[in-house]
Amino acid sequence: MKKTYINMLKEVELDQPIFIEALPGIGHVGKLAADHIIDELQAEKFAELYSPSFPPQVMVNEEGIIENMKNEFYYLKSAGGDKRDYIILVGNTQGLSPEGQYEICGFILDLVEKYGVNEIYTLGGLATGQPVEKTRVFGAATNTELTEKLKEFEVVLRSADGGIIGASGLLLGMGTLRGMEGICLMGETPGYFIDAEAAKALLGVLMALLNIEVDTEQLEERAQETRKMISKAQQMEQEMMERMTLKPGEEDLRYIG
Amino acid sequence: MKKTYINMLKEVELDQPIFIEALPGIGHVGKLAADHIIDELQAEKFAELYSPSFPPQVMVNEEGIIENMKNEFYYLKSAGGDKRDYIILVGNTQGLSPEGQYEICGFILDLVEKYGVNEIYTLGGLATGQPVEKTRVFGAATNTELTEKLKEFEVVLRSADGGIIGASGLLLGMGTLRGMEGICLMGETPGYFIDAEAAKALLGVLMALLNIEVDTEQLEERAQETRKMISKAQQMEQEMMERMTLKPGEEDLRYIG
Amino acid sequence: MKKTYINMLKEVELDQPIFIEALPGIGHVGKLAADHIIDELQAEKFAELYSPSFPPQVMVNEEGIIENMKNEFYYLKSAGGDKRDYIILVGNTQGLSPEGQYEICGFILDLVEKYGVNEIYTLGGLATGQPVEKTRVFGAATNTELTEKLKEFEVVLRSADGGIIGASGLLLGMGTLRGMEGICLMGETPGYFIDAEAAKALLGVLMALLNIEVDTEQLEERAQETRKMISKAQQMEQEMMERMTLKPGEEDLRYIG
Amino acid sequence: MKKTYINMLKEVELDQPIFIEALPGIGHVGKLAADHIIDELQAEKFAELYSPSFPPQVMVNEEGIIENMKNEFYYLKSAGGDKRDYIILVGNTQGLSPEGQYEICGFILDLVEKYGVNEIYTLGGLATGQPVEKTRVFGAATNTELTEKLKEFEVVLRSADGGIIGASGLLLGMGTLRGMEGICLMGETPGYFIDAEAAKALLGVLMALLNIEVDTEQLEERAQETRKMISKAQQMEQEMMERMTLKPGEEDLRYIG
Repeated sequence: MKKTYINMLKEVELDQPIFIEALPGIGHVGKLAADHIIDELQAEKFAELYSPSFPPQVMVNEEGIIENMKNEFYYLKSAGGDKRDYIILVGNTQGLSPEGQYEICGFILDLVEKYGVNEIYTLGGLATGQPVEKTRVFGAATNTELTEKLKEFEVVLRSADGGIIGASGLLLGMGTLRGMEGICLMGETPGYFIDAEAAKALLGVLMALLNIEVDTEQLEERAQETRKMISKAQQMEQEMMERMTLKPGEEDLRYIG
Repeated sequence: MKKTYINMLKEVELDQPIFIEALPGIGHVGKLAADHIIDELQAEKFAELYSPSFPPQVMVNEEGIIENMKNEFYYLKSAGGDKRDYIILVGNTQGLSPEGQYEICGFILDLVEKYGVNEIYTLGGLATGQPVEKTRVFGAATNTELTEKLKEFEVVLRSADGGIIGASGLLLGMGTLRGMEGICLMGETPGYFIDAEAAKALLGVLMALLNIEVDTEQLEERAQETRKMISKAQQMEQEMMERMTLKPGEEDLRYIG
Repeated sequence: MKKTYINMLKEVELDQPIFIEALPGIGHVGKLAADHIIDELQAEKFAELYSPSFPPQVMVNEEGIIENMKNEFYYLKSAGGDKRDYIILVGNTQGLSPEGQYEICGFILDLVEKYGVNEIYTLGGLATGQPVEKTRVFGAATNTELTEKLKEFEVVLRSADGGIIGASGLLLGMGTLRGMEGICLMGETPGYFIDAEAAKALLGVLMALLNIEVDTEQLEERAQETRKMISKAQQMEQEMMERMTLKPGEEDLRYIG
Repeated sequence: MKKTYINMLKEVELDQPIFIEALPGIGHVGKLAADHIIDELQAEKFAELYSPSFPPQVMVNEEGIIENMKNEFYYLKSAGGDKRDYIILVGNTQGLSPEGQYEICGFILDLVEKYGVNEIYTLGGLATGQPVEKTRVFGAATNTELTEKLKEFEVVLRSADGGIIGASGLLLGMGTLRGMEGICLMGETPGYFIDAEAAKALLGVLMALLNIEVDTEQLEERAQETRKMISKAQQMEQEMMERMTLKPGEEDLRYIG
């Protein structure tokens, strides 16, 4: 494999879909929320992305079966009260090098742009390094209209206290260069375990913003399942990404999308 | 040298060969086993792979002679009870960067695919960081039929406890995208010395799986020879790869293929 | 985004402009000085540079709005006593990899060469790691005529006590290969806070050299504003660049442009 | 600058020249020896190599003048008792990434091959980390004929105790793939200061091997000069290369070419 490529699994027709991204990050908050939407609303996979900038390894699942590192695109038709179409991106990894991250996000935007996406939601966790009493949801957006909307939904605006690192930031930033607008939502989480509470809070805001309903009852169950299934390697990888971007000992707000 | 390339040394005709990979990794378990097969069954070298993603250095052998970093392809015709053909890949290094690893594995699969390979065995060590009483062999595979087969041969299935890093994992994962299936076998080893016991256990399972016979009597002797011949640089390189992928102090199961 | 590119915002005509570079570096000394010139003399932005070698992230500003990593080109017409034209380069980041830095500097020089630039001033800080009593300005240049000029203006010549790392050095070095000449000015600063004193000293020398006048009264105010606005992520990035190039514990003169 | 390139300064005609490489490495042993040959025998520069894989910085010399990172080719005609032609490669840096090192060495070999080179000598230091009583010269070669020759000249053969990292190793290894043969000579040095003794011992062996004479009287003087001129940045860079390849605390024989 010399280049990033997308393997199309199914031809789909979508009408100006909303694009939701939730690749692995802190606390698996975003991924947990997005996997839950996919399962509960029975989204269907239609494309896979492979890249030589992913970690040079494979995962082994619970049954001892080998799985490639990849990003996966799902779609939903006429979902929620607004009957909108959706593309949801999940996966087991992100690109490692800066150049790889930019290239992969370029491929992702090329694909979703083809389907008419002009609205992006990226999901992640925000590690505060402290016990969380009542989970807050943090946010940032590409324009003031959207930040105003976030305030209405009681999202705490991030304010010059750090960048958004990885796909959750880059897809929004690069998206603006193509005329797309969007929001990044981050569930507050004490640290690096699989945090169902943060995912639930995040999902609550997302559902309100998108006018969709997803039963969150089984989210804790899913979190436990994920805790079992998440391999050490994925945790190691996540830690590697953190080491790439954070100073050891730093205790304040930080985020890897 | 600007690109990875393969230097063909000999034209060979092979009938749906089985592909065995054993590039340097933990405890030199896989390499030791594969080098032993090559010697005992007199496999012949037919191709060499060079890459700018290999470490920028040369090795010096026991006689003070300089040797390039490379991967080497050997073949065997009508070997074992099943009279199968084989391609065996060994070498003194692996690619350093993620992009390099993916590119090199792509070149390797391109070559073996040309000969009709659709069955891959990758060999490595699994460092438990603890003294090993009775060496176990761990495994993972690309489908459930093969994992069932592994259980029959008393291989311990790895189960969501980590990825398989490097060529041993990547060749299997990338192979599935070309319709190839395969198994990764890992000999349990306490750590980073040249482990003949682990190689012997690994070889035992491999021979049973492939229905071939290899005299393992001289394996300890080979291990001692290897211990002498293995240069510090190779050890350093191995350590570098480990530092790239492991958290210092981590004591649990881990594997570099 | 697969390649570095420049987005032209406005067609401008310039007559042999002087090129001033001040991308983020130690103490934000250069950036502070250049941002101040841009504001006080009302320079206008005419081009932006994006690169996959920038950190794979976005910044969040005070209002929670997402901003891409980028370099920005401003111009000034008939400024100062000599009525010269200027191109001023500022931004929120530099390239991370060596190859990225060289590529980006090549793009920058391609652009400014098109406008007839043959004189370059690069601005930065020089961290001495010690309290600074009276801020000195250090300098280096591409020829002896210019180093003589620096001495006249009481700039302390750097003398074989270290390289100039990053765009401030590279643009001058690569510029000489195109027949451009220039000066690097570095304001002495104790360390890593936003240092208005160093920027003021630097600006003083620059104004004298270029025969321009800029009111520096509000520089301290700007520094305070910058301190607020500068996100942790930018600081982290800067520290990352320092870790890339400096030995921990090193106390002597050092510089990242 | 997007690609490595060679700037030809002068057309020269050479008759099967011997190629000597001495880029910066441990103790500046090789560089010191080669710079001395260049000065004493008045070799003339005829080409320069620039690369985006060099450190993204410039050097500042004693007069405050900025110098690019580069490799420089000198030539000698009819030198020594055998009246042979020579190409000598020196410079202030080596490539940083593996891919860069391979690419640069490929460019170097392309150039010298054009002049008919089939004999390579690479010069470096070998740090033993201990005080050196009587400086030994270590060596390795591309064939047994040459290792025999080294023994005659009382060079200590390196024997499977480590690789040769960087251009000194890579040029020889990659050279063999083009039918070139050669020798790597390494002067023993306690560590990282500019070591005139090691350079003198190295030069002694080289002169005997090549049947040339160079007055070594002023070598210590040159070493002192180099100590003054060598900037901290160069030392930092060297340390960076060492950190890339050596385990901290390692005390045994090691070599960076």
